[in-house]
Amino acid sequence: MANDAPTLEAETYRSAFVNAELRDLAVSLFDQFREMSFDGVGISRETYGPGETQAIEVIEQLAKQYGLQTSWDAARNLIVRLEGQEPTLPVVASGSHLDSVPQGGNYDGAAGVISSLLALLAAQEKGTPLRPMELIVLRGEESAWYGGPCYFGSRALFGLLTDADLQSRHRVTGKALEHHMETCGVDLVPIKASRPLMDANRFHCWIELHIEQGPVLIAREKPVGVVTGIRGNVRHRRIVCRGEAAHSGAVPRWLRHDAVLAMAELLMRIDEHWRILLEWGEDLVVTSGIVETNKKEHAVSRVPGEVTFALEYRSQDPKTLDSFGNLIQNECNQIGERRGVAFDLGEKVYTEPARMSDSMVSLLETQASDAGIECEIMPSGAGHDSAIFANAGISSAMVFVRNDKGSHNPHEAMEYEDFFAGAEVMARALWQAANDGEEKRP
Amino acid sequence: MANDAPTLEAETYRSAFVNAELRDLAVSLFDQFREMSFDGVGISRETYGPGETQAIEVIEQLAKQYGLQTSWDAARNLIVRLEGQEPTLPVVASGSHLDSVPQGGNYDGAAGVISSLLALLAAQEKGTPLRPMELIVLRGEESAWYGGPCYFGSRALFGLLTDADLQSRHRVTGKALEHHMETCGVDLVPIKASRPLMDANRFHCWIELHIEQGPVLIAREKPVGVVTGIRGNVRHRRIVCRGEAAHSGAVPRWLRHDAVLAMAELLMRIDEHWRILLEWGEDLVVTSGIVETNKKEHAVSRVPGEVTFALEYRSQDPKTLDSFGNLIQNECNQIGERRGVAFDLGEKVYTEPARMSDSMVSLLETQASDAGIECEIMPSGAGHDSAIFANAGISSAMVFVRNDKGSHNPHEAMEYEDFFAGAEVMARALWQAANDGEEKRP
Repeated sequence: MANDAPTLEAETYRSAFVNAELRDLAVSLFDQFREMSFDGVGISRETYGPGETQAIEVIEQLAKQYGLQTSWDAARNLIVRLEGQEPTLPVVASGSHLDSVPQGGNYDGAAGVISSLLALLAAQEKGTPLRPMELIVLRGEESAWYGGPCYFGSRALFGLLTDADLQSRHRVTGKALEHHMETCGVDLVPIKASRPLMDANRFHCWIELHIEQGPVLIAREKPVGVVTGIRGNVRHRRIVCRGEAAHSGAVPRWLRHDAVLAMAELLMRIDEHWRILLEWGEDLVVTSGIVETNKKEHAVSRVPGEVTFALEYRSQDPKTLDSFGNLIQNECNQIGERRGVAFDLGEKVYTEPARMSDSMVSLLETQASDAGIECEIMPSGAGHDSAIFANAGISSAMVFVRNDKGSHNPHEAMEYEDFFAGAEVMARALWQAANDGEEKRP
Repeated sequence: MANDAPTLEAETYRSAFVNAELRDLAVSLFDQFREMSFDGVGISRETYGPGETQAIEVIEQLAKQYGLQTSWDAARNLIVRLEGQEPTLPVVASGSHLDSVPQGGNYDGAAGVISSLLALLAAQEKGTPLRPMELIVLRGEESAWYGGPCYFGSRALFGLLTDADLQSRHRVTGKALEHHMETCGVDLVPIKASRPLMDANRFHCWIELHIEQGPVLIAREKPVGVVTGIRGNVRHRRIVCRGEAAHSGAVPRWLRHDAVLAMAELLMRIDEHWRILLEWGEDLVVTSGIVETNKKEHAVSRVPGEVTFALEYRSQDPKTLDSFGNLIQNECNQIGERRGVAFDLGEKVYTEPARMSDSMVSLLETQASDAGIECEIMPSGAGHDSAIFANAGISSAMVFVRNDKGSHNPHEAMEYEDFFAGAEVMARALWQAANDGEEKRP
C-alpha cells in the first residue's frame, strides 16, 4: 500500500473478536482433525469411539494450554470454562459435537466446537466476563452409528437417555451403546438412573454454530444464518394404499381401484396444501422419499392393487404438524372413498420441534449487523443438540455457516471466510450475553 | 307342469341352434379337457406341447365322428370343415386356441373352440350352408410359455412368424420355439420363408368366442358381449424421472427437485386427461403398474432424486394412442421445466389395435336380439388371435362370455348358461353369414 491508511481488511481484523491469530489456530485445528480422522474416503469419528475421544482431547489440551479450565462430566462430555467475575451466575454456554457419520465431512460438528473455543479465547483477550463462559463438547450427536437414536451426550446432560438408547446396537460391532460408553469411561450409574448431569438453571443461554446442511445460504448468497427454530417432524415410514389388482386391458376405468393413481392423487393434494400453507406463512416441508409397488405381483399390464410409500413432514410449529396430520387423514378418507381404496398410515413417529429464543435470535441479528455481516433468518430442518437444550428450557440459538454440497458426506464445502463470519457473530453475541446487565450491577 | 303349454325353457330349447344334445356334448368336452389337463393346481396345456396336441386331437376325432372334414396345416393348426353348397366360395370361419397359461383355467381358449364345433354341428343339422364353414383350432396363443411372443398359430397362417419368434426360449426347457414346433410335427420350411399358409381372401369372415377376462359383463349383468375392437397398446416399461436428491429437513420447497412429486403430478394430469377423453367418447385405459424409488439411495428423510415407473395405455383407435402419446410428452416437458426434473420415457413398444368389422358387430347384435339374449357392446382390452385375422383384412368379430375372477388363473368362473347364450349368438351369426346372399342366387 502506498499510504498508511488502514485497508478495510486490516480494519476488519483490528475490530474483529476473532483476530488473525485465532483464525490461524482454527485452520490448524481443522487440519489436525482431518489428518487424525481421514479414513481413506472421508472423515470417520465414531459416536463414543476412540476417534471422537482423541479429537476432544485435542481441544482439552489446547484449552489448558491457553489457561482455560477443563472438566469431564459423567457422560464424558468435555466442559471448557472461562471463569466469570461472578462464578455463581448462570453460564453463557456454547458448543457442538465432534463425532461424525461414517465417511462424513470435517466440518459437521467440528465447526461449532472450534468456533466456541475461538469465542472463549477472544473473550479471554478482552478481559474477564461478568458471567462464566463455557464450551461444551458434546458426545454422540450422530444417528448413523446406532441405527437411529442420537443426541446421546446432550440428552445425558438432562437425564433423558433411555434404556432403549443404551441398548442400541453399533452398526459394525453389534454391541450395545452402553458397552461403548463404558469403554470411553462413562459412568452409567447416573445415566441409567435418568439423573440430569447438569441443571438447566445453571445456563444463562446456549448457542451452537453449525454448517448449514442445505443450500439456502448458497442460494441467498449470504455467509451466515440465524436459526429461528429446529423443525420437528412426523414420519410414516410405510403407508400402504390398497386397491384392487386387475388386468390393465380388460378392466375399464369405472371398475378400477388403482392404488398408484390414488397415491399420486394424495401426494398432489398434499403438495397443493403445502404450497398454500407456505403462502399463509406456515413453516413446512413435506417429503415422500420412498415409493414402491409390490415386486411379487406388479407388472406393466396390471392395474396396481397395492403401493407402499413413506411420508415425512417437518415444521417448527407443533400445531402445524398436528393440523397437517389431520388434513392428510381427511384426504386419505376422501380419496379412499371416491377411488375405492384404503390408506393404512401405519406407525406414526413424532419428533418435537424446538423454538429458539426470540431474544437470542435478536441478539445474533444485532451482532451480525454491527459486524457488517449479512445474515439470513431461517429454520433448521435438520435436528441438532440445540433442540435438547431449547426443550430443556434454556434460551438457545444457532448460527448457520454457508456450506455447499450438504453434510454427511466427504464433499462438505465450507469456506473459511464464511466460518469466520459465523464465528465472529457468535463470539460477539456470547460476549454480549456474558456481560449483559454488568452496568446494572452496583 | 299342470297344463301342456310349453315352458319358456322348452321353447328356448326348441328354437335354439344349440340344442340340448349339443349342450351335453359341450359340457362333456369341458369335463374331458379338465381331466386331461389338470396339473394339481390348474389347467396346463403348453403352447406347442403334448397337452395342447392331445386336446386338439379330441376335437379332430369328434369332428370326424360327426362326419365333418378335418385337416392340419403346416403349423399344425387343425381345420374342421362343413362343406358348403358352393365349395369355392370364401369360408365362414370361427375358432380359438387350446393352449393355456401354466396353472390356468379351463375356459380361456377352449370355450371358443367348443362353441365353434357346436356351431358347425348345429349348422349341419339345419342342412348344407351356401358357403363352407370352418372351425380353426389355433395353436400357441398364450405368451406365458415363451416369455412374451404369442399368437404363433394365427401368425403362421398369414406368414407373420419372425425368426425372433422361432428362437424364443421355453420358460422351462429353455429350448427354442422352433424345436417344440418340430416336435409337434410342424413343417418349418414355409414358416421360415414367411409364406402364408392361407390366403386372407379365402375367408368370408371370422368369429371368435372367448371368455371375458375382465369384470364388465358381471358389472353390467349381461351374459354376452359383442366386441367392437381389440385394443392396441403403447408400453413404456421404464420411465425414469430424475430430479435432485436432498436432505428432507434442510432443503426448502423452492430449492427442491422432487422426482416423486413430479411423477405424481404427471400421473394425476394423465388421469385427468383420461377422464375427459372418456367423456368425449374416446376408448382408452391407462395404467402405471410399477413404481419404484431407487433402493440404493432412497430414505424416509431424503427428497427423492429419482423414481422409475411403467406406463401403458390402450385404445382401439391408433389415432388415440398417437395423440395420447403426444399429450404425455407435452406434460413431461411442462412438469419437467416447472419442477426442474427430467423425464426419460425410455423404450416405447407399440402393439397395433384391431378394429372388428362393423357389419359383423351388427350381425351379432341382431342375432342376440332375435334370440332374446342381452348383450353389451364393448372393446376387448386383452389381445386375441382375432386381432391377427382383422389386421390381415378379414371381416372379424368376437363374442365375449361373462366370466368371474378373470382368466389366466384356476378360478375362472364361466357359467354354462352364459356360455350357451354366447354360443347361440355365434352359431346364429355364422349360419346367417354362411347363407347370406342365398336368396339372390338363381
